[in-house]
Amino acid sequence: MPKMPKRNAFYAQSGGVTAVINASACGVIETARRHRDRIGKLYAGRNGILGALDEDLIDTSKESARTIAGLRHTPGGAFGSARYKLKGLDENRAEYTRLIDVFRAHDIGYFFYNGGGDSADTCLKVSQLGERLGYPIVAIHVPKTVDNDLPITDTCPGFGSVAKYIATSTREAALDVRSMSRTSTKVFILEVMGRHAGWIAAAAGLAGEKAGEAPHIILFPEVPFHQDAFLKRVSECVRKYDYCVVVVSEGARYADGRFLADAGTSDAFGHKQLGGVAPVLATMVRDQLKLKYHYAIADYLQRSARHIASGVDVEQAYAVGKAAVELALRGQNSVMPAIIRKSDRPYRWSIGTAPLDQVANHEKMMPRSYISRDGFGITPAARRYLAPLIQGEDYPPYRDGLPAYVTLKGVAVKKKLPRRR
Amino acid sequence: MPKMPKRNAFYAQSGGVTAVINASACGVIETARRHRDRIGKLYAGRNGILGALDEDLIDTSKESARTIAGLRHTPGGAFGSARYKLKGLDENRAEYTRLIDVFRAHDIGYFFYNGGGDSADTCLKVSQLGERLGYPIVAIHVPKTVDNDLPITDTCPGFGSVAKYIATSTREAALDVRSMSRTSTKVFILEVMGRHAGWIAAAAGLAGEKAGEAPHIILFPEVPFHQDAFLKRVSECVRKYDYCVVVVSEGARYADGRFLADAGTSDAFGHKQLGGVAPVLATMVRDQLKLKYHYAIADYLQRSARHIASGVDVEQAYAVGKAAVELALRGQNSVMPAIIRKSDRPYRWSIGTAPLDQVANHEKMMPRSYISRDGFGITPAARRYLAPLIQGEDYPPYRDGLPAYVTLKGVAVKKKLPRRR
Repeated sequence: MPKMPKRNAFYAQSGGVTAVINASACGVIETARRHRDRIGKLYAGRNGILGALDEDLIDTSKESARTIAGLRHTPGGAFGSARYKLKGLDENRAEYTRLIDVFRAHDIGYFFYNGGGDSADTCLKVSQLGERLGYPIVAIHVPKTVDNDLPITDTCPGFGSVAKYIATSTREAALDVRSMSRTSTKVFILEVMGRHAGWIAAAAGLAGEKAGEAPHIILFPEVPFHQDAFLKRVSECVRKYDYCVVVVSEGARYADGRFLADAGTSDAFGHKQLGGVAPVLATMVRDQLKLKYHYAIADYLQRSARHIASGVDVEQAYAVGKAAVELALRGQNSVMPAIIRKSDRPYRWSIGTAPLDQVANHEKMMPRSYISRDGFGITPAARRYLAPLIQGEDYPPYRDGLPAYVTLKGVAVKKKLPRRR
Repeated sequence: MPKMPKRNAFYAQSGGVTAVINASACGVIETARRHRDRIGKLYAGRNGILGALDEDLIDTSKESARTIAGLRHTPGGAFGSARYKLKGLDENRAEYTRLIDVFRAHDIGYFFYNGGGDSADTCLKVSQLGERLGYPIVAIHVPKTVDNDLPITDTCPGFGSVAKYIATSTREAALDVRSMSRTSTKVFILEVMGRHAGWIAAAAGLAGEKAGEAPHIILFPEVPFHQDAFLKRVSECVRKYDYCVVVVSEGARYADGRFLADAGTSDAFGHKQLGGVAPVLATMVRDQLKLKYHYAIADYLQRSARHIASGVDVEQAYAVGKAAVELALRGQNSVMPAIIRKSDRPYRWSIGTAPLDQVANHEKMMPRSYISRDGFGITPAARRYLAPLIQGEDYPPYRDGLPAYVTLKGVAVKKKLPRRR
């Protein structure tokens, strides 16, 4: 193989962050550092792709090996992330021209983009800059999303840790409710994330192992909600066990498509903001069944809970970061390292490769075969899929009783270009 | 000391359960088992004091040593708890007569009651049964409450673990919000428990160590809420840091005493149900400041989160259970083992004794000196008090990726009496 010229690399985090996205960053950076003969500087975009557009780059070489190692156990997006989708090349050529200007100014030949489905699409477009706009760059997508909806890969880094957090929290809260039900709360409702897919809600199902154990009811976005059937099941459950634990996805909806959480209001930007389905259910339980209820909304707590991350998830998050750099150095472009499942129990997996055009804009939905016939629980097939993803504990170090998370210096690279217009 | 006759003992859990109340049960049972010469059977009330009134007793001798040891790491109330306050002896003599009938039928000479302030009052009344109704019984209160409002004792078992959970969750969620603030959520609100006391909200303050670190605003029940001052502080914070993390106590209230969470509705039993203050604040942030927000309501998750219990808390919970039995065997009556702080750093403590008449119906409020002058944060004095309580990690064992909590057989003792009328 002819010796390739040494070029710099760009890394950015995109979309909603997770408990382990920094573990992927750690994998990218540590691996790049082991290949100093091929990769010069590794620059990270401050606040994702906006960092590239604004020429706001963080020089990762200014961070100590110890800090970079600490990223493996630090939640959130250490470099800042952004919800920002590049438009099509023909719709917004100026943005791509700007990207190329920045990349050229800093001699960037590698683009590592850590995100979900939308980000895979951006990464795909960047991978085509050589062909389309004459600036050759190697673009590798690093998978991440708690929604677990990327195709091809067995799972998405970030999901396993949310799954472990939600299953654990469901089990714990259920013990609390069960012990108090005689004189206090009968119905407990836990609202979880997942947007339009029930993966996270399904993970709560792992909390119960024997018949009668919580959660007694899971409400999936994939199963139309019927108030009567729901309340009937709650009543039955309270009659049988004296309490009832409900886990509901923020995306739960009626047969006509309306979200339960949709009170008809929109957020400041005119978007319908999901969240708040738990109080809607609680009101039904109170008004129709006259039962005492409590509800929890885990919100960001669930996707930032690095203190109870899944060991498998952390390992996979690191592995896809490492693989991304290795794929780039092997001359691959426009691909994503994908997790390939070899066996369920024991869980064995390896890293394969998925072409980005097969990843971008393809959503992996939860198979109907993972939801029990009555629509309120998970099947053995779902358990077989989910159980391996929450295995292993990977505790962060603690200092003074709290997880010791690292903070980057975040030294900015000197700008070479005029400001973006 | 003359040899005391061997008698049986009764143990019950009372009020809201915690992540470590079973560790106290473990302390009581293991210690009683080491004194088989003095204590015969240890019976637990199923669902707290109701188990005594209903003669529904669990024979703890049927549980293996391994299961009892497992209580140390199992959250919730393994024997069932109850919110049930005995009326005064003169108001409801029949209830006390029934208690005595049950105690006499099962030769119960020791009463260990594991609860908060109301339960201390019940325990005090039971301790007077000898004097008042001619049935001598030794009654020892085992302290427990996440609200941390018992007097004399340095802290209440259960609180340290909630404190650790809330401080950790605040730190984690803050990292998430901070990394996304450029294009997404600017204001994150976490609602915590604590009823009318701000202890738990204060614990969130431990999450931030340096100036500017989250939480940026804590709303205490002790400090009257003023919307203008709150929104002004949120704005300043967003201007300065681009995001703002707010921790609010469920008991936050206006100057006129109205709860923020009080939408004027009551629960099925006519009680005002707290909870739901976070969405009230979120609505203010949206309507007045037009900022994107998210909120979490931790609810039962916080008090059942055994997976991140404080090591100090677990140790203290066990110690007060153990001490309760030892105090009884030393002939003490009508007391509570109390935690005595010897030094802050390193935290050193021992177990002392508090007379129940000084515990019952005395609430320990949070000192105003623990709240910063502006009312939105904690002081160094608060840190000195709180920091030791969250020290140490005491992880439960895991099986298949989830905490392996124990379940009791719960074998009922044969009834000897007619049903309670």
